[in-house]
This record gives sequence, C-alpha cells and structure tokens, in this order.
Amino acid sequence: MAGASTSMRLRLPIACIALEVILIILFGVAVEYDHDVSGEAGHKTNTTHHDYENEFYYRYPSFQDVHVMIFIGFGFLMTFLQRYGFSSVGFNFLIAAFSLQLATLVQGFLHTIMTGGKIHVGVESMINADFCTGSVLISFGAVLGKTSPVQMLTMAVFEVILFSVNEFILLSLLNAKDAGGSMTIHTFGAYFGLMVTRVLYRPNLDKSNKKNSSVYHSDIFAMIGTLYLWMFWPSFNSAITLHGDIQHRTALNTYYSLAACTLSTYAFSALLNHEGKLDMVHIQNAALAGGVALGTAAEMMITPFGSMIVGFLAGAISVLGYRFITPFLESKLKIQDTCGVHNLHGMPGILELFTVSLFPKITSDFPASAQAGMQAISLVVTLGIALIGGIIVGFILKLPIYGAPSDSQCFEDGVYWEVPGEPEDCQELAAVKSGEESEKLN
Amino acid sequence: MAGASTSMRLRLPIACIALEVILIILFGVAVEYDHDVSGEAGHKTNTTHHDYENEFYYRYPSFQDVHVMIFIGFGFLMTFLQRYGFSSVGFNFLIAAFSLQLATLVQGFLHTIMTGGKIHVGVESMINADFCTGSVLISFGAVLGKTSPVQMLTMAVFEVILFSVNEFILLSLLNAKDAGGSMTIHTFGAYFGLMVTRVLYRPNLDKSNKKNSSVYHSDIFAMIGTLYLWMFWPSFNSAITLHGDIQHRTALNTYYSLAACTLSTYAFSALLNHEGKLDMVHIQNAALAGGVALGTAAEMMITPFGSMIVGFLAGAISVLGYRFITPFLESKLKIQDTCGVHNLHGMPGILELFTVSLFPKITSDFPASAQAGMQAISLVVTLGIALIGGIIVGFILKLPIYGAPSDSQCFEDGVYWEVPGEPEDCQELAAVKSGEESEKLN
Amino acid sequence: MAGASTSMRLRLPIACIALEVILIILFGVAVEYDHDVSGEAGHKTNTTHHDYENEFYYRYPSFQDVHVMIFIGFGFLMTFLQRYGFSSVGFNFLIAAFSLQLATLVQGFLHTIMTGGKIHVGVESMINADFCTGSVLISFGAVLGKTSPVQMLTMAVFEVILFSVNEFILLSLLNAKDAGGSMTIHTFGAYFGLMVTRVLYRPNLDKSNKKNSSVYHSDIFAMIGTLYLWMFWPSFNSAITLHGDIQHRTALNTYYSLAACTLSTYAFSALLNHEGKLDMVHIQNAALAGGVALGTAAEMMITPFGSMIVGFLAGAISVLGYRFITPFLESKLKIQDTCGVHNLHGMPGILELFTVSLFPKITSDFPASAQAGMQAISLVVTLGIALIGGIIVGFILKLPIYGAPSDSQCFEDGVYWEVPGEPEDCQELAAVKSGEESEKLN
Repeated sequence: MAGASTSMRLRLPIACIALEVILIILFGVAVEYDHDVSGEAGHKTNTTHHDYENEFYYRYPSFQDVHVMIFIGFGFLMTFLQRYGFSSVGFNFLIAAFSLQLATLVQGFLHTIMTGGKIHVGVESMINADFCTGSVLISFGAVLGKTSPVQMLTMAVFEVILFSVNEFILLSLLNAKDAGGSMTIHTFGAYFGLMVTRVLYRPNLDKSNKKNSSVYHSDIFAMIGTLYLWMFWPSFNSAITLHGDIQHRTALNTYYSLAACTLSTYAFSALLNHEGKLDMVHIQNAALAGGVALGTAAEMMITPFGSMIVGFLAGAISVLGYRFITPFLESKLKIQDTCGVHNLHGMPGILELFTVSLFPKITSDFPASAQAGMQAISLVVTLGIALIGGIIVGFILKLPIYGAPSDSQCFEDGVYWEVPGEPEDCQELAAVKSGEESEKLN
Repeated sequence: MAGASTSMRLRLPIACIALEVILIILFGVAVEYDHDVSGEAGHKTNTTHHDYENEFYYRYPSFQDVHVMIFIGFGFLMTFLQRYGFSSVGFNFLIAAFSLQLATLVQGFLHTIMTGGKIHVGVESMINADFCTGSVLISFGAVLGKTSPVQMLTMAVFEVILFSVNEFILLSLLNAKDAGGSMTIHTFGAYFGLMVTRVLYRPNLDKSNKKNSSVYHSDIFAMIGTLYLWMFWPSFNSAITLHGDIQHRTALNTYYSLAACTLSTYAFSALLNHEGKLDMVHIQNAALAGGVALGTAAEMMITPFGSMIVGFLAGAISVLGYRFITPFLESKLKIQDTCGVHNLHGMPGILELFTVSLFPKITSDFPASAQAGMQAISLVVTLGIALIGGIIVGFILKLPIYGAPSDSQCFEDGVYWEVPGEPEDCQELAAVKSGEESEKLN
Repeated sequence: MAGASTSMRLRLPIACIALEVILIILFGVAVEYDHDVSGEAGHKTNTTHHDYENEFYYRYPSFQDVHVMIFIGFGFLMTFLQRYGFSSVGFNFLIAAFSLQLATLVQGFLHTIMTGGKIHVGVESMINADFCTGSVLISFGAVLGKTSPVQMLTMAVFEVILFSVNEFILLSLLNAKDAGGSMTIHTFGAYFGLMVTRVLYRPNLDKSNKKNSSVYHSDIFAMIGTLYLWMFWPSFNSAITLHGDIQHRTALNTYYSLAACTLSTYAFSALLNHEGKLDMVHIQNAALAGGVALGTAAEMMITPFGSMIVGFLAGAISVLGYRFITPFLESKLKIQDTCGVHNLHGMPGILELFTVSLFPKITSDFPASAQAGMQAISLVVTLGIALIGGIIVGFILKLPIYGAPSDSQCFEDGVYWEVPGEPEDCQELAAVKSGEESEKLN
C-alpha cells in the first residue's frame, strides 16, 4: 500500500535520533566556548566595562534578525501552497534546527584545520550556521512538496558539508569577498537544489496533481515570510561584516537595493500579465532579489545610487525568470522548481558577479581587476560544486528508502501529518454534498 | 468596459519605472554616505574602538522595530477586509518602498537647504524616511479599498513633499518638539487622508458593495499588525531622540501609556455594545492610541503616572470615535474613512497638545507656556497644510487617468490581482450549489 | 437566559476601569524613574559618552524579544483552537497589558521592602514585569476556552501577587539561581494553572462541546506563536543575567538546547502515532521545552554538549506527556489542561532541578551540593505556593459573578466577541444547506 511506504513511524525517529546523538557526541568531543562566552579573561565576578564590549552586544541583534529570516521568513514564504502549510513551516523548522547544529561542526572543523585546536562557538558561529542553513532551505524550496522529511534531512547532511567546503575554498583559499553570501549561500543553494530536483524529476506530476498552487489565505501567510525576509535582509548582509562604517554601509546599501527592487517587481509583474494584474508569486519572491544581488557588493562603496540600479535590475530579471525561464526549465530541462529558487536565488546571485566587476571601476574602492577575476573563479567553483554535488546527492535521494510521496501525494500535508477536519459548518456542508451525491447514485 | 478602465498593464509599469528612474538619478546627483557610513574618519583597515561607537549600534535595533511597524504593522493591520488582503499588504509594501526613497530625498534636501552640501544618508535618515512613510500609510488607511495603486503612488508623491515641508517648518523653523511625531506623522497623515477621501466621496458605495467588512480569519491576520505596532511603539517614539536617559525614558513612558490604553479600550468596547460584546475593530485600533497620544510628550518627565493617564484617555476617546464620530463623519460630512484613521491617528494626535500643555505645569520639566504656545501654533500649521493639501491632492486624484475601481469593484482584490481559486473541496461545494440553482431554474 | 449571564457589558468595563484607576493611583504614589531613566546624573543637555553606556542599549533589544514572546508568542500559540482565535490573542493581550503593570508594582514593592524608598522603573523592571506576565499566560493556557475575561483578570491579580512573593523568597531569601525562570515562571505558572483548572473542572465538557480542537488554518496561525517563542527563547533566558560572557553563554546554551529539542520532538511525535504521522500539537509545544528546561542552568558552564542533552530529553518528555500524561490527568485527576501546559512548562521546569544538580558535578562551575540543595528547597517552595495558591484562587474564580461560559459556550469566540459572518460565497453555501434542511422538514 502507498500509505505504508510513506510511513514515518520508524524512518523519521531513527533518522532524527541517530543524527542528534551523533551531533551531541561530536559537540562533546570537539566544541568549546569562544573566549568571550566562557569568560576566560577572568572578569567573571563583577560586571566591568569590559563586559559591555562583549561581541554579544554588537552581533546578537543581527543574529536574531537572521534567525527570524530562517525560521519565519523561509518557513512562511513556502506556505503559499494550498495544502502544504504544515509541511512548509514544519519541515523548514526541522531541517533548519538540524542544519544549524551540523553547520556549526563542519564550518568550525574547517576553520580549525589550519590552526588546530577545538571548535569555538559564540554569536559569530551562530550567524554562520544560520547562513549555511539558509542555503539548505533554498534547496528545500526547489524540491518543496515532492520529498519526505527523511529525504530532506539526508539532503541537509550532504549539503551542509558541501556548502562548508565551498565556503572554505572561496573565503579562506581564494580570498573571495562574500559577506552577504551571494555566491556561497544563494548561488550554491539554488543550483544545488535545481540539480536535486532535476534528478528527482516526476514526469506525470502535473497530470496527477492539482495542489501545486495557492489559495487566498495561503498567499497571505506567505507574505509574512516575504516581508520578514525583505525587512531583515539588511541585517543578513551585514551580520558578519567588520564592525563600524562597513557594517553600517552594508545595511544601508541593501536597504536601498530592496526598495528599488520592489518597484521594478511591481512594474514587471503588471506588464507581463495580459490583464495587467499583479501576480502574488512575483511579489512574494522577486521583490527580494535586490537583497540577494547585493550579497557581496553591499559592503563596498557602491553608493545608494549603485545599490538602487542593482536592485532594480534584480527585480526585473527575477520577474522575467518566473514568467519565461521557469516554464522553460520545466518543459525542456525537466527541472521542476516548486518555489522558483532559480529566479530568486540563482540568477540574482550570478548578477552579483557583474556588480562586483563593474563597480570598482567607477568607485575605485576595490583593487579592481585582480579581485574581479578572483570573484569570477569563485563563481565557477561554486557552480561546479553545486551542480556536481546536486546531481550526486539527487541520485542518493532517489533510493527507495526514504518514504517519498507518490505523485498524487505531492503537495499534500496529509501524507506526513495528522490534519484536522474542517470547521463544523464546513463539515455539514460537505455532508450535504456527499448526501446529494449518494442520492444521485441512487 | 470596466475591466479595461482599471487595467494596470501600462499605468503601473509606467508609474513605477518612471518614478524609480527619477529617484535613481536624483540619488546619483545629490546623495552621499554620512561620515560614519563611509568611514571617512580613516579607520577602515582594522576594527578599532571607534568602530564600536558607530551610530549604527545605537539606532539600528530601533530602526528595525520601526521597519517592522511600517511593513508588517501597517500592512497586516489593514488586512481586516474580507477580500482585500493582497491589496492591503501588497500596496502597503509598494507605497512604503517608494515613499521611503522619496522621503530620503525631500527630507534630506530640506535639511541641507540652510547649510548647503549633499544629502547625507545613514541610519538616522533611514528612520526619518520610515517616519514619513508611516504618515503616507495612515492616509492610505483612510482611502483603503477605493483607489488604484497608481492613484496611491501619486498621492504618496505629494504627501511626502507636504509632510517634509510641514516637518521642516515645525522642527527647524518653529522649534516645536515632536520626536515621536504626534503632529508631524499622525495628525498630518490622518487629516490629509480624510480630506482626500472626502474629495473622492462615493455616494453609492454602501448600496453596491458588501465587502467593506471583515471575516473571521482576516480579523486574526489584522491582529498580527496590531500587536507589532503595539509592541514596537516604544521603539517608534524613541527611535530618533537624543541618546541616554531621554531615549530610555521615551520608550518607558510609551510602554506604560499603551498598557493603560489597552485596558480602557477593552472597557469601552464592551460598554458601548448592546450585548456587551467586544468589537475587533476597537481592539485592533484603539489599543494603539496610547502610542500616538504620547508621540511628543514621551520624552518629557511626565512620569509613568502621567503616561498612563494619557494612554487611558486616548483609548477611551478612540473607541468613542469609532462608535459615534466615524458614522457621523460618513453620514454628515461625507468622509468615508475605511480604517477609522481619525480615531487612531487624528484625535489622539490632537490630544497630545493638551498633554504637552498640561504636564509642564506639574512637572516643571519644560519651559512651560512659551513652548506650549509654540506647540499650539505647530498644530495649527499642521492642520492647515494637511487639510488644504489633502483637498488639492484629492482633486488631482480625481482625474480619470489612474484606473480607479468602480463602486462595485471596491474592497475587492480581484480588480488588480490574480486571485487564486478556492481549495478543491470548496470548488466542489460551489459546483453543488450552482448545479442546484440551475436545477431550480429548470 | 444563558446570554444574559455571560454579558460583559458592565462586568468587563467595571473590572478594567477599576483596576486601571487603582494602578494609576499606585503608580502616582509609589513609582519613580530609575536613575538612568531620569538623567539625574546631570548629563541632560548634551549627548555625552556616558549616554552611550545607558543600560537601555544593553537590555532593550532583549526586552523587545521578550515582549514579542509575550504578545505574539503566547497569543498566537493559543490560536490553535478552531473558533477561539479572537479570545486567544485578544484576552492574551488584555491580561498581559494588565499584568505587566501590576507586576511592576508588586515586584518593585517587594524589592524595596528591605531598603525602603520608591519603586524604580526602567528597562530591567520592564523585563521582570514581562517575565511575571509570562507566568500568568502559562496559567491562562491551562484554562483557555473555559473562562470569561473578568475571571482571567481576577486570576491575574492573585497570580501576579503570588508569583512575586515566590520569586522574592527564591531569589532574595533563598539565593536560588533562576535567571531564565524555570521555577519562578514555568513551574509556578503551570502548577498554579493546573490547580485552577482542577477546581473549575467541567465534567460534561467533552460531551457538549466539539470545538476543543484545531482546524487547518488555526494550526498555521499557532505556528507563528511557536516559532517566535522558539527563536527568542535565548533572549528570554538571557534578558536579565549579568552582562558580558554570562549573557552571551546563556543565549548560546539555550539555542543549542532548543535545536536538539526540536529533533527529539519530531522523532517522538512520529514514533507515538500509529501511522507515523506528525502531530501539530507536539510540534507547536514540545519543541519549546528545551528553552524551559534550561531556564536556570543556561548561564552555567554546562557546554553546548550538556545543553543539547537537556534539550533532547525535554522534547522527549514533553511529547510523552502529551501522549500519555495529559489524557491521564483529565480522566483520572479531572484536570482539563487545554494547552497542555503541564507538558511544556510543568515537567520541563522540574527537569531543570536534575540539570542543575547534575551539571555542577561534571563542570565544577558551581558550588555544587549546597546550591543544589537550595535549588531543591526552592522547587518545593514554588510547588507549594503554586498548588495551594491555585486551589484557593480556583475557588475564588468559581463564584458565579464573572460571567463564565456554559459548557456549550466553551471554546467559542461568539460568547464575548462580535464575530463577523462568513465570506459571501460561504453564506450562499450555508443558505443552500439550510434551504435543503427546511425542504427535508417539509
């Protein structure tokens, strides 16, 4: 029976408990507090001036903004599907809570590979772990509705490792710049997820399933996610920059990019609709492209003027992607991208390369050509690891052991969740309906 | 055809792209980073002690709270209408993203008019721009459901300019006090919006339209907006005050005013209902009046005691306004105030004058009568600019070029948005219903 | 008539106005600004370096996170009931706004009992008042759906006083440690509420009422509450610790505990369901137990490893509680615990004692046995005051003067709120239905 094959009764507990036990053991062995978490400097008894300079006070508000983006932002953005709200926000929650633990270990391990010693944790590791988690959630958006939670946890294991390796190569070996993660988070997460969903292609999905769409209330829930991502993107891009004017500037540039992006999103959404009506999918997603597209460049002296140009272009490209490229990917390349992550994270992440290449020439802020070349190499490395990694992980996820849903079970919470009945009134209405049907049968 | 006349296919793209291009050009010509954004002090290479004193760390958390109020607070507060959720939160998003860019320019231009030089941007300009945006969104609340997005963008252009002129007169010329914007934001936005909706009066609206009301879920969505406005109002009033005890005190006083306001709101809402039942409209709106009414006085030594009295009165006045004054405005003065902004922003903003006049006498914190007189003059100026400006802008918005909805299209997302169908089950029910109707016709 | 006996037309206004007037008078008599709120240090005219060291900047972001937990977190967590969303979020709002004012007075009074002088208010008193409010809202969760708002306000009066007395005994007399309030907030609030609901036991509730359950959208609304509580729990536990590494460590440990707790919650939720399906009640609640269980220990050097073990156990215990203990409490002990606060706040709060007793032995951070004994005594005191207080207050709330709902009116907004009709389409469907029924009757 189909029901049996998707059961999570043993699969999910085994996966969750095994993974968490391994995490706990590795944390016990390898992790210790950072120096301003343990108070090793010896100022434990009284609150001294030194205590007010703890990194906590300069990073924690940004961390909390990023945390809201990960759990509310991504979680609710994906609730747009009519009967997949429990899974969208619930699996987002599970995958994120797992990924941030694993990311702390893998990122920390790679960080200590040169210097030796234990993995140090504190508010900076919390932010970096949330960043890696964001990349996993972007890939989750590509396969949304078509996978089991155990499949997603498995994907997260591999993606966290590959993400961290790519990030290490870019930031530590190639000395690329990417504070806001245009390449490391968005480009990587998008193309990795697109490859996974390509390998998991379901040729008959559209015929057997009508639930890959929104209803009125689900679109409003999704706007909660959109707005939190939009409002806090300045915190995201600036969360891990150097302190002072650089952090200030990063937040400011991102804010202008997003504002300009919003206007171009509305413009192109209306323009591309035959009746001139706005499409919620565009507003929910494309309006955020201005944050992605400035992930690297936001810390530079690109001026509000430059930020607004980048944001405006990112919004336009993203809407055009939803209108023309997503259907093309699905029909020609067999890539079923549920949330359209290619339009929000893939292309705007690549747009970044042009931004970073272009702006040094006009602002002279940046040692231009050498760095631009390094950024281009970094993008190639990122695409390479994401595409090849995504294909391999896709095949791993194709094994028939994860309890994946059948085509007709896709985009349906009922497969993995106890779903409550409708309100009493609706039940009565439904009873009326079925009563009539039985009358007709008689 | 009615459908054609409301089409946004060309109107909205032209408006958005033209406005954004003009904004980008003006930002390119006139705007530069503030000194602690550009790092001109020369501490760019290493993170120094100086970097930790960047204004960013003392304003950005307040800014983010204000930002949440603008996009989630106002946006979701207006989702109470049963079929206008996309427009409420979506047009709020569009208008706000536009207004904050224009406000940066106009406020900045007026700020440099004395001193010359370029417009400087940083976290303070971000807060001030969000404040001006708040005023536009208050006016949006008065005309909600009865206008096209192009009409709203046009209103925003004029209102941002008039807001900034009024703010400049009050704060720079008259030396009025108004850190939390009782007059500049709330009184101005409310009376401007009331005049616009007066000019746009639709005599047959109630007869042809049943959608100017809430449903169960839309009222819960609206509470998201209410609660974020309520929780973060202390940040709003204190976001731009001087640092130190003044900022601390402003947040504290606002917090007490809001708490007391909530109790009087519940009390009067039950008292004025024949069955003693609470009305969601009151809870969603009047409970916030305590924040408005303390916009000016919150930074003074008015004590928690004084704050609570003001908050208590503001809640009572606001509920009474919803019960008695809104129907009067509509029936007698032909002012159709969709969200009741007169009760939340108009009257409480004026109540402020009494607060500011009264408290100096008992606290001796304030050079009493001279300043009180100046506050009164400021209120007259604000009302003058808002009322006259609102009438003129109302007539500009009456031109038949904006694709405004017909009476029967008001309060209905379907005019400007692709609205998804109902969930599958509901469609079947609807089919049952229409089937029966056709049977009856046979 | 039943309708008359539940009317809030006079009861609620009298209660709200009387309570608020008393609060205002007591604030006027007994409260003054803390020294860094009033600016008594004499640095009022210019912004000096000193102003940047105001406690406001080091506590206010944490305060706002806690504030969101109280109003959005608790408020929306309780919206899971199908027709009790207005009451859940609305009465939560009312009770919290009242409780934080009263808590400021009672906590402040006890604080000055030794030293004399007036009650000082500032950002620390704001956090402490929100903490006390949290305890009242936990008890609200136990009786949710079965009480009138006046009953809840009455409960809040007594509970705030008893909470503050217990907190004073623990922290000031017994020198217990409890920065995050495992005992003072969670254990106290849970067992107090359980006793109140025991005394208010309704034997025929399940027979006459089908509304004590969720619907699809209400479960998604509840996830908003869950996620905000989950994300901001690190701020909750660390909001009032000493500054510096201790605050940093408290947030970090809580974050790891919650992450591990989430994985064990999903594991046990699937394991205990016959079809292996996840239960929203578990996810919404048990995933938070990791924050409760670390309320005391989070500031200690228990390491991420220790935090994750505690969180993992807390999640498991909490799910097991929902599955086995809640039905037992209801059928055998006649305790009808609407939100299952025993599983989220009761047991995890007690688990804390084992944590605090266990970890000092392995970390040597803590003067072990003496303090562990004091923590045990504190837990006994807390349970004693909560259980006895809850029974007494329960009997006070049983008086037939509060307008409590009848059994069939429980879990139904319509008793105390003006509830809007269904959307037009639904009304037509309902008309179809009733039309048919009348046909059948004919």
